[in-house]
Parts: sequence; C-alpha cells; structure tokens
Amino acid sequence: MNAALTVNSYFNDQVKSIALDNAEGTSTVGVMAVGEYEFGTSQREYMTVVSGALTVKLPTENDWKTFSKGDLFVVEANQTFQVKVEETTAYLCRYE
Amino acid sequence: MNAALTVNSYFNDQVKSIALDNAEGTSTVGVMAVGEYEFGTSQREYMTVVSGALTVKLPTENDWKTFSKGDLFVVEANQTFQVKVEETTAYLCRYE
Repeated sequence: MNAALTVNSYFNDQVKSIALDNAEGTSTVGVMAVGEYEFGTSQREYMTVVSGALTVKLPTENDWKTFSKGDLFVVEANQTFQVKVEETTAYLCRYE
Repeated sequence: MNAALTVNSYFNDQVKSIALDNAEGTSTVGVMAVGEYEFGTSQREYMTVVSGALTVKLPTENDWKTFSKGDLFVVEANQTFQVKVEETTAYLCRYE
C-alpha cells in the first residue's frame, strides 16, 4: 500500500538520505561521510545530529560551531551553509 | 577517499537503511514505512526512535510497547522481535 521509500544521493554518494513524512512533518534521515560540503536550503531546515558530529558555518554566524549527537540547528530558507564532517555522521533534517 | 555509503533495503523496499561507522560504533540509520515487520538479530541491537513511533513485541516481554521519538530499546543477539509501524518512522540501530 505504501510507495517505496525514496533514497537520495548527493556529492558523489558521500551524502545519502531517506525521505519520510509523518506526524512530525516532512523530513529526511541521512548519513554524511567524512568531508566538507555546502548545502543550500529551499525551506527552513531543522537539522538534528543523530550520531556523530557536524561542524557548521551558519549563514548568520561568523564562527564555525560543532554540533554533537542530539544537538539541533536551524537554517532559514534560501540560505547556504557549510559543513565539515570529521567522522561519518547521521542526521535528521526536518523541512518547514 | 571514502567508500560510497551503503544503502540496504528490506521487506520489498518498505524498510531502508544507510550504514555508518563512527566513534559511537557501527550503526544503521533507516526508515520503516507503515506496516508490520519481524526482524532477527545477529548482534545486540540498540534501537532508538529518531522520528515517529514503533510498537514493539520484545522477545523478553509478553506485551507490546510503543517507543516514541528519543526512546531506546535493546534486543539481544540471535533473537526475533516484531514491530508495528503506524506512521513512517526513522530509527538509529547501533550494533554491539
């Protein structure tokens, strides 16, 4: 009865995610391999670190900040942000 | 430098997961579509609900129990457990 779950791949397969829709909203859960990435947003994104850590340069901040397991950061729509990944990291990204 | 991230699919694509290895250990992060599933373990599994909810019949319990976002349950190696999923749910499964 369910459509198959959608997997997306980015940055030459260094970032992969699986989409979900539920009572919490529309999200993806994914994994980033070690590396440096720049993401662009089309909606507001609520990013939660599920396992590992992300070092992030938010568009509103001058400094890099490291977010660890359980930490949340928010990026407004139509922004770019940089991420440094020093260990393979799982995340939940909710779109609003 | 990194191998591409591995995606696994189960139950006719109703459950998909992405593998990761980091300081926390070896895990998969995945999504279960609405449905009922029976899983078997080969190692001890630490299952955390990342978004949504899982209603679980653990091998050591007589009753079903619902685990919500942030909740953890543990299944020993070489056991089977049943899961009912009423909304699409993301999980982190750490193997030990």
